[in-house]
Amino acid sequence: MTALKLNVDLGERRYPIHIGPRLLQQQDVLRPYIAGQQVMVVTNGTVAPLYLEAVRKGLVGLDVHVTVLPDGERYKNIATLETIFDNLMAAACDRETTVLALGGGVVGDIAGFAAACYQRGVPYIQIPTTLLAQVDSSVGGKTAVNHPKGKNMIGAFYQPRAVIADTDTLATLADRELRAGIAEVIKYGLIREPEFLAWLEQHVPNLLARDAEALAIAINRSCQAKAEVVAADEHERGERALLNLGHTFGHAIETAVGYGQWLHGEAVAAGMVMAAFMSLQLKDLSPADYQRVLNLVAQAGLPVAPPADITRSRLLSFMRSDKKVSAGRLRLVLLKQLGHAHLCDDYPPTALDDTLRHFQITD
Amino acid sequence: MTALKLNVDLGERRYPIHIGPRLLQQQDVLRPYIAGQQVMVVTNGTVAPLYLEAVRKGLVGLDVHVTVLPDGERYKNIATLETIFDNLMAAACDRETTVLALGGGVVGDIAGFAAACYQRGVPYIQIPTTLLAQVDSSVGGKTAVNHPKGKNMIGAFYQPRAVIADTDTLATLADRELRAGIAEVIKYGLIREPEFLAWLEQHVPNLLARDAEALAIAINRSCQAKAEVVAADEHERGERALLNLGHTFGHAIETAVGYGQWLHGEAVAAGMVMAAFMSLQLKDLSPADYQRVLNLVAQAGLPVAPPADITRSRLLSFMRSDKKVSAGRLRLVLLKQLGHAHLCDDYPPTALDDTLRHFQITD
Repeated sequence: MTALKLNVDLGERRYPIHIGPRLLQQQDVLRPYIAGQQVMVVTNGTVAPLYLEAVRKGLVGLDVHVTVLPDGERYKNIATLETIFDNLMAAACDRETTVLALGGGVVGDIAGFAAACYQRGVPYIQIPTTLLAQVDSSVGGKTAVNHPKGKNMIGAFYQPRAVIADTDTLATLADRELRAGIAEVIKYGLIREPEFLAWLEQHVPNLLARDAEALAIAINRSCQAKAEVVAADEHERGERALLNLGHTFGHAIETAVGYGQWLHGEAVAAGMVMAAFMSLQLKDLSPADYQRVLNLVAQAGLPVAPPADITRSRLLSFMRSDKKVSAGRLRLVLLKQLGHAHLCDDYPPTALDDTLRHFQITD
Repeated sequence: MTALKLNVDLGERRYPIHIGPRLLQQQDVLRPYIAGQQVMVVTNGTVAPLYLEAVRKGLVGLDVHVTVLPDGERYKNIATLETIFDNLMAAACDRETTVLALGGGVVGDIAGFAAACYQRGVPYIQIPTTLLAQVDSSVGGKTAVNHPKGKNMIGAFYQPRAVIADTDTLATLADRELRAGIAEVIKYGLIREPEFLAWLEQHVPNLLARDAEALAIAINRSCQAKAEVVAADEHERGERALLNLGHTFGHAIETAVGYGQWLHGEAVAAGMVMAAFMSLQLKDLSPADYQRVLNLVAQAGLPVAPPADITRSRLLSFMRSDKKVSAGRLRLVLLKQLGHAHLCDDYPPTALDDTLRHFQITD
């Protein structure tokens, strides 16, 4: 298998995504994207022992600094961001310093936001090492940290210079993390790729078995789908919001159970099932369509319902503080049909009520 | 006197600056720039008692929240930023919330950065109430907070929807603050407006006497000069750097004496004199030119030299951590002639050494 290269077309902020095996070992992949003499690698305690050495080899001759963050969504906050700033300042990093994110979505989100803010913006490269980060956060330039009262509330749109998605790094990924990544892959099928959805119904077992070919296909299709959406709507004023299928429910679930209890992909999986059920209530999906969603999510070993122990008022309050609320209205991404999502804020309130009740979310 | 309106031409991010008396009293000036239903006014304990009520009158019918910050540069940090985020979250502010900065440069820098980051960017309006903020931070979209080891190290380029510079608010400004603002006005004369420089040599006494007509002329000329530079170079890759005349020295002075001891404009004034002296060393300025700079700064009641008690190594180390360092080289804005600045990094090291020695900065 050879590496694929895909371009995210954002005018003067366009950047390439390299996808394939053995990319970290090939020093000529990363090096051309480093601008100045200084590099700050941001990674975490889990990823550093696995891949930091390989990355360092690609940076020989440069002034390389490393910030190792504690692993986990609960550290995705302003305090962690400050440790990166402290290290950048301590190393006297100038405005041509490249910030290199080596890790999953959390590392990418924090490191990207640090790059966006340090000296009002320094170059930034992503090396995502989880399936979720490779198919989701690698495209689109969303960076953020969490606020105690809401996920991703503090952040910036900031594009990397390049993304290097080495599929070999998925070999060391925990099963649970792999499944969480598949949730986002399923999402692309549901919102705009009916044929890919059908492909997934056949190949989820191959993905779970970490079949290299299947993974590369899934990553490439996902990145392509997301790149098309983002190129059309960089700042999420319209179509890009469709990428949030399952996310308003999902973010609320994540917040309600406490950051880090459920993985982002797990919460999104349950959120997508809830959105699909609501679409069924609105008669946009048929019972058979809904069943297909349920089966696919279940086949991937992902949760098909929110946890039992969260209350309606708590979930709704977190949903309302989500960024998808516009001028006080709770706007949701729902399915018009399988493979076609739409943004909806004119649903009858009973549809949301019935959905919550169906999933036994009551006060 | 009628109000002036000036446009900062940044394509889709273009915005107007209204300059003149009685603007806060005219409700139709501010209101058209408010997008959603929610407004977060960010101000400080000094400005709030003076002008918050007038601003509130212009926002009747909207959902108005207020964050009152402690007054002073030493609060321009991440902790203060977090209180704004906390208040935005507590008030369930959505992504169409307008952040309105009412105050001087510190309030504008923090509030603007909060607006840039909250939900990855919400609308932002500036009502600058100091001369410095009206002529400097109101144009160009630079927002930031300080890092303990360097000024303005954490920030974003983020443009407001509009700036409303009500000259009446200068009536309550302390003399020292007024003079600090004049430092930046002088800067525009020095870097690109020789005729304005000559005008200033005649009219500094009028500015110090708060002559309304003279102030309006100075604000308008300064904003116009800055708007032209910023429109040509929004992200400070080239010409915009010239606006930093006196700032590399100045920021280092501010940091060395401790934030809040010297006002920004005071440090910049001394920094401009140092830059002018170095230009004299390089034989770009004549002794008579240098004397004109010295006289003008002195006439405005501003410092013409750095404080005596900072050491050479300390000043140089702060200068090196300034953002104007590129790939490790200390790049300075110097004067090619009066009214014409240039970016210089090929000066002989002795020129900088001689300049520091002249101002009695030694180890």
